[in-house]
Amino acid sequence: MLTDEQHRQKMQQRKAVQAQRLAERTREKGLIIVHTGNGKGKTTAALGMVLRSLGHGYRVAIIQFIKGAWEPAEKAVLSHWSDQLAFHAMGEGFTWETQDRQRDIACAQAAWELALSYLTNPEYRLVLLDEINVALKLDYLTVTQVLQGLARKPEMTHVILTGRGAPPALIDAADLVTEMTLIKHPFQEQGVKAQPGIEF
Amino acid sequence: MLTDEQHRQKMQQRKAVQAQRLAERTREKGLIIVHTGNGKGKTTAALGMVLRSLGHGYRVAIIQFIKGAWEPAEKAVLSHWSDQLAFHAMGEGFTWETQDRQRDIACAQAAWELALSYLTNPEYRLVLLDEINVALKLDYLTVTQVLQGLARKPEMTHVILTGRGAPPALIDAADLVTEMTLIKHPFQEQGVKAQPGIEF
Repeated sequence: MLTDEQHRQKMQQRKAVQAQRLAERTREKGLIIVHTGNGKGKTTAALGMVLRSLGHGYRVAIIQFIKGAWEPAEKAVLSHWSDQLAFHAMGEGFTWETQDRQRDIACAQAAWELALSYLTNPEYRLVLLDEINVALKLDYLTVTQVLQGLARKPEMTHVILTGRGAPPALIDAADLVTEMTLIKHPFQEQGVKAQPGIEF
Repeated sequence: MLTDEQHRQKMQQRKAVQAQRLAERTREKGLIIVHTGNGKGKTTAALGMVLRSLGHGYRVAIIQFIKGAWEPAEKAVLSHWSDQLAFHAMGEGFTWETQDRQRDIACAQAAWELALSYLTNPEYRLVLLDEINVALKLDYLTVTQVLQGLARKPEMTHVILTGRGAPPALIDAADLVTEMTLIKHPFQEQGVKAQPGIEF
């Protein structure tokens, strides 16, 4: 256990290290961000970034590759920024709802074409491709297609790609990758249902 | 590779499984939620849950145990809900800024007393204890203290506790635990600085 004075000295050193780190990090660039893993929070953390960007006055586009992932509460929240935000729910539901692969593929491709129009438009500072990793995993889109699209984005545009099972080539191309890992989940263990304010 | 018809049949089975799962999950309860790990998105995902809850019309309290974790863009966003939201920035900065352990401990204890007043008030459906895990890790608060407080919350109140290094006893007491794992980070690898709309 350190004395208060030793603590003070240690913190003084740490502050110097922090200051040097900040001084070394001067580059600004649009980031390719991936939220993947089986845990919660992939879309929710992206929603937080969307709101931060809106709070800065930036234009944001959300393309939702699986319909139903966003619920009325999100829409109510986002309606405050309808002049800055383009929101497109492109999917037709989970794959087990539609039960029609050809229609799912057509939907995913249409969503991707729309996504490209925002990705290449420098007015949009953040583009959220929600659940696109699931479309990649199901081969509704190819990784090559998506990487070629990401290569066309303006330097300062941030892109967030969410969903389980992000392919390795996408992770290689990304700047910031976070894996949300499920440690404990009440739905499985306690029979608790999805609850308003938390899940939707 | 499945034929389209095999795909349809597989999805039909999966839909039945999903329906059964939903039917089994009937319980509603306030959740103790922990976001921990060294990755990004712990606070951001909590912010997303806060906004969902506000979108549902619920009252929400945010107690920030380390000042500086929330920036003007978040505050601009949250100002739309000032009638539903209690927001308290209680810390005085990172430990290496204050360099004064006794003052940090006093701040953390004051933040905890305030948190308790919201945790025990049934009007608040969600209480976010942002970066409290860091205060626990530094022994500014004891786990016993926090677990006793959580035990006093009304049945339907959700609590989110964020920060690296959540103690095992807290994880045991929690309902939903997600670990955000850093896979790749542009600050370390590319010298990129924290950027508006993403980091703050």
